[in-house]
Amino acid sequence: MEGDCQVDVYQRIKELGLALPKVPKPLASYVPARVYRDLVFSSGQTGTVDGQLRWQGKVGREVSLEDAQASARQSVLNCLAAIESVIGDLNRVEEVIKLTGFVASAEGFNQQPAVVEGASKLLIDIFGDKGQHARSAIGVAGLPLSAPVEIEVIVKVNL
Amino acid sequence: MEGDCQVDVYQRIKELGLALPKVPKPLASYVPARVYRDLVFSSGQTGTVDGQLRWQGKVGREVSLEDAQASARQSVLNCLAAIESVIGDLNRVEEVIKLTGFVASAEGFNQQPAVVEGASKLLIDIFGDKGQHARSAIGVAGLPLSAPVEIEVIVKVNL
Amino acid sequence: MEGDCQVDVYQRIKELGLALPKVPKPLASYVPARVYRDLVFSSGQTGTVDGQLRWQGKVGREVSLEDAQASARQSVLNCLAAIESVIGDLNRVEEVIKLTGFVASAEGFNQQPAVVEGASKLLIDIFGDKGQHARSAIGVAGLPLSAPVEIEVIVKVNL
Repeated sequence: MEGDCQVDVYQRIKELGLALPKVPKPLASYVPARVYRDLVFSSGQTGTVDGQLRWQGKVGREVSLEDAQASARQSVLNCLAAIESVIGDLNRVEEVIKLTGFVASAEGFNQQPAVVEGASKLLIDIFGDKGQHARSAIGVAGLPLSAPVEIEVIVKVNL
Repeated sequence: MEGDCQVDVYQRIKELGLALPKVPKPLASYVPARVYRDLVFSSGQTGTVDGQLRWQGKVGREVSLEDAQASARQSVLNCLAAIESVIGDLNRVEEVIKLTGFVASAEGFNQQPAVVEGASKLLIDIFGDKGQHARSAIGVAGLPLSAPVEIEVIVKVNL
Repeated sequence: MEGDCQVDVYQRIKELGLALPKVPKPLASYVPARVYRDLVFSSGQTGTVDGQLRWQGKVGREVSLEDAQASARQSVLNCLAAIESVIGDLNRVEEVIKLTGFVASAEGFNQQPAVVEGASKLLIDIFGDKGQHARSAIGVAGLPLSAPVEIEVIVKVNL
């Protein structure tokens, strides 16, 4: 992937065989993402497609590692849709700063990094070096609507 | 709620039948909130009143959805008290940027958004449009002193 | 500890009988820490020493409170190593802004603040007043490689 700076993000998403979803409707009184100066904070996003979760339950029990990784990827696409909804154009993303991945974890499941890797790798596939981020991966007791994964990101943008 | 910008926050809290608590004493070596430029990061706050929790345990087991929502509201008031302790006047809050809500969740409980909504709605009731925020709702295994809810916020202020 | 501003951080770490570890190798496609203007966001760090965890499991079951506190301290040292890897010199740290501590918690364990206190206290021992931070302590279902504690920090630096 040469010349990171010229790559069109939408072209890159298409090349990866993916599509940017419609911005997920918040489940309540909040907004999909919020701008502070040149930072954008996304709301936590699960892997919904058109409002439906393909996988539900805890990773290591109802949901396999592979399906959890796919859910993490979809969660990141939903984060990007959320960010686009407040900045208009994802080509304005200059750096991904931080990603936090919450993984609904069955007793004893300890491969949260492998799950969240689905999200991290996709950001780098899309943004190249600009997608390199700090990250935390956390195993949690449960997530909204029994989602297996929830992802939130902070990105720096060129406004 | 016309003319958001003129509304006095303390008046609004009173109109809602609420009272700003004393800033909760940190449980250890940390401060209630920290300023970075024009951002304030609150510490995570539970729903203590005068240091006591009215509800303890996991939501969906010991604690009902309604009580958890009330606990989320009290947690937000404690966040505001924490923020006031470092900026002096809550009318200086210009925007609520991000809220993260952690909900101690019984096995199978998946209505974290409904719980955290108690917190989000109160911020909008108090601050109007300025209270609109990005949000994550997470179900966790346990919280300090068996609190059902813990809330942290990041706000932008006019210093 | 007089004259905070003159204390050399490395000298202070040595006086405390501690050593700064090598920066932990990320478990996947992310970086140990990320700079945004004069803020540094660390990735979540566990208590590994040379890539190995001394304690594994949930606090209140496999891991005692005391061992969890030691793990929190080692996690903070790993955060500092991560921050040093992107800013070069820890004496550039001007303020610790926020610490989030995730504690893998056995059913009923509710002393997360006592665990995370190990991390908070060490930051204050090392940085003095500059180490005072906002904090959240959260009990979670599991952490990478069955670590008992994961810590992330945001610090303000003088670049």
